[in-house]
Amino acid sequence: MYKIIELENGLEHVRGFYCGATHVGMRPDKEQGDVAFIRSDVPCDISAVFTSNTFQAAPIRHFLQYPNNFQTNFVLMNAKNANAMTGEQGIEDIEHIMAALAKKRNVLNPVMSSTGVIGYRLPLDKIISAFDSLDFNAKDSHGAARAIMTTDSFKKELAYKIELADGSSFHIASICKGAGMINPAMATMLCFIATDADIPKHDMDAFLHTSTEQSFNRISVDGDTSTNDTVMLLSNKKSGVYHQKAFLEALNKIMFELAMMILRDGEGANKLVAFEIKGAKTQEEAKKASMALSNSLLVKTALFGEDPNWGRIASTIGASGITCDEKTLTIYYDDLLIYSDAFRELDKEREAKAYKIMKQNAFKVTCDIGTGDACYTSYGCDLSYEYVKINAEYRT
Amino acid sequence: MYKIIELENGLEHVRGFYCGATHVGMRPDKEQGDVAFIRSDVPCDISAVFTSNTFQAAPIRHFLQYPNNFQTNFVLMNAKNANAMTGEQGIEDIEHIMAALAKKRNVLNPVMSSTGVIGYRLPLDKIISAFDSLDFNAKDSHGAARAIMTTDSFKKELAYKIELADGSSFHIASICKGAGMINPAMATMLCFIATDADIPKHDMDAFLHTSTEQSFNRISVDGDTSTNDTVMLLSNKKSGVYHQKAFLEALNKIMFELAMMILRDGEGANKLVAFEIKGAKTQEEAKKASMALSNSLLVKTALFGEDPNWGRIASTIGASGITCDEKTLTIYYDDLLIYSDAFRELDKEREAKAYKIMKQNAFKVTCDIGTGDACYTSYGCDLSYEYVKINAEYRT
Repeated sequence: MYKIIELENGLEHVRGFYCGATHVGMRPDKEQGDVAFIRSDVPCDISAVFTSNTFQAAPIRHFLQYPNNFQTNFVLMNAKNANAMTGEQGIEDIEHIMAALAKKRNVLNPVMSSTGVIGYRLPLDKIISAFDSLDFNAKDSHGAARAIMTTDSFKKELAYKIELADGSSFHIASICKGAGMINPAMATMLCFIATDADIPKHDMDAFLHTSTEQSFNRISVDGDTSTNDTVMLLSNKKSGVYHQKAFLEALNKIMFELAMMILRDGEGANKLVAFEIKGAKTQEEAKKASMALSNSLLVKTALFGEDPNWGRIASTIGASGITCDEKTLTIYYDDLLIYSDAFRELDKEREAKAYKIMKQNAFKVTCDIGTGDACYTSYGCDLSYEYVKINAEYRT
Repeated sequence: MYKIIELENGLEHVRGFYCGATHVGMRPDKEQGDVAFIRSDVPCDISAVFTSNTFQAAPIRHFLQYPNNFQTNFVLMNAKNANAMTGEQGIEDIEHIMAALAKKRNVLNPVMSSTGVIGYRLPLDKIISAFDSLDFNAKDSHGAARAIMTTDSFKKELAYKIELADGSSFHIASICKGAGMINPAMATMLCFIATDADIPKHDMDAFLHTSTEQSFNRISVDGDTSTNDTVMLLSNKKSGVYHQKAFLEALNKIMFELAMMILRDGEGANKLVAFEIKGAKTQEEAKKASMALSNSLLVKTALFGEDPNWGRIASTIGASGITCDEKTLTIYYDDLLIYSDAFRELDKEREAKAYKIMKQNAFKVTCDIGTGDACYTSYGCDLSYEYVKINAEYRT
């Protein structure tokens, strides 16, 4: 038996990890910072999942130049500049920055992670100036989480302590950023997870992939996929303790909770909606229909308008290309049956209930396709005026 | 040789066709009308292209119950109610309406077409009351075009006279509606084309499909696909004249111009943008990348913000899953090179030019993938606050 206990704050709980941030002038707000780091006092194993975008940003291509199963003790992060579509120069710039870092500290295979505007070279002098002002012995998880924010309206951190029956324990904690551009293929989000569990590398790789599929790949803000998406898991084994089942449960939990935070912070979004497909012919079809709902502009605007218009839900299912039939389909808002072949038009009472459900800031839409046993749930949010405003004005 | 001459107004030019509209109280605005008809004084051949949505609306399912190559002399249209997701009842309701019509007039295989809210039965008595007030001998193309509008901000009509070298001529004309929900698979648009050309049925079928592929299937407002999309071509042969090449050119022209009208009327849209992909490995990949651009929320909001942010264009190409490489890619706004491997960051002069191009209400984005010879162009529009407003409040 084991217990998963949620702790306050973030990365500072994990043995041997240090983190912090500074401000080098990449953005006007000094308080927020723009360059951050995570380091471990002993070498870490590292696993990563990167964007499916063909134009992977320079920090990802730089990471992939290291040999398989390399170890590292340092992750450098920056906001405001994605270092994407910057060609070979983008990688050379990272190497230049890391050479400057190596003059200050004993770093092993340092990696970088960036978020911001595409197509501009990193300001090298500014970023290198960070190495004079950063406190490398800080445990400032708040500062690091704040410094990597872009259009995020709140910082995202989580930490768990896992206590085993024999009283031993290990930790898993994360900082994360992401608000817009989040889609099934986890666009423009960065997530750094640190653990002191004594986890073998092959478990890290396997679990990071399955947990990503259960979390970040199930959320959609606007269906776009960025050049920089990254989920990293660092383990320095300092607790000397490991419990496979407990670790996987904690990892799933931390990544799912972070994904929900990102969705709640969807640019201009006010509502979090789960789209559950049941009774589909295949798992693939269930996923296709579920993602079609969480990506549909018409569904998103209906959510924002709090209009219990099940017609848009049904139409999106019909347009998704899956096997379906209006005679076997049923649609629920939370537990309220809102469409079935038996009754099509909402009576006043049912409509009033539907309005009430849609006024909540989180609810579930369930579509039972009625042609099989497969199911899939994805998570979406509404689309508001604010989304358009934020994205029209992003660069300015 | 032949000449294609654009005429004022719409359907009234086509020999033997009559059209008009009335108001039966389905919407408050009496002036606009809500029920319309098109009829021919002799039987017509009819070809149609319908939505790819699995949940085809009742009028489409009713149409498809007629035998292959049936002839008709009457099309009834209504706004405000899609008669979609109404099951068998939806078809019975149409049959009931058509039986009432048959008591008044000698109709042959009448067909129906509806647009509006999903999931409600047609108000039978209201629609049947139209048969008392409609003037069946009218040639009121304006009235019919206005009555079928939903979120359209202007009515859509076009008419061409095709003059052949020997002085003989035929006509082709159309009324059309559509503004929101338009996507590659031509969502919630209705288009009725009438011709007096002596065109064989197999040409009608073939040409309607290829012209749809070149026009309505290349435009995207929001990537959704409705239950009711319909393009119909009616021919009564009354001119006794036909010229295959001239007819096809005129049909392509009328459908392309109508598609551009729909796009210009995209809900809340201000800009019309052509997304041309060149140099792709295959035609399929060119189409995939082009449609990804015209459907991307981030590209759409950048267009609205008039931000020459080529990063979002590049990122969308990279995310589309096609074969591409940032080294061979070039991006142009109109004729202005805005990205190539040779230079990434925009100088001030080029950026100023880019701003100017984006301020136009129509321009072209060209991406040369640089890996092959295939090309494809689709057409999109920007996404504004208005889009969200219109769609959040649609039903109310």
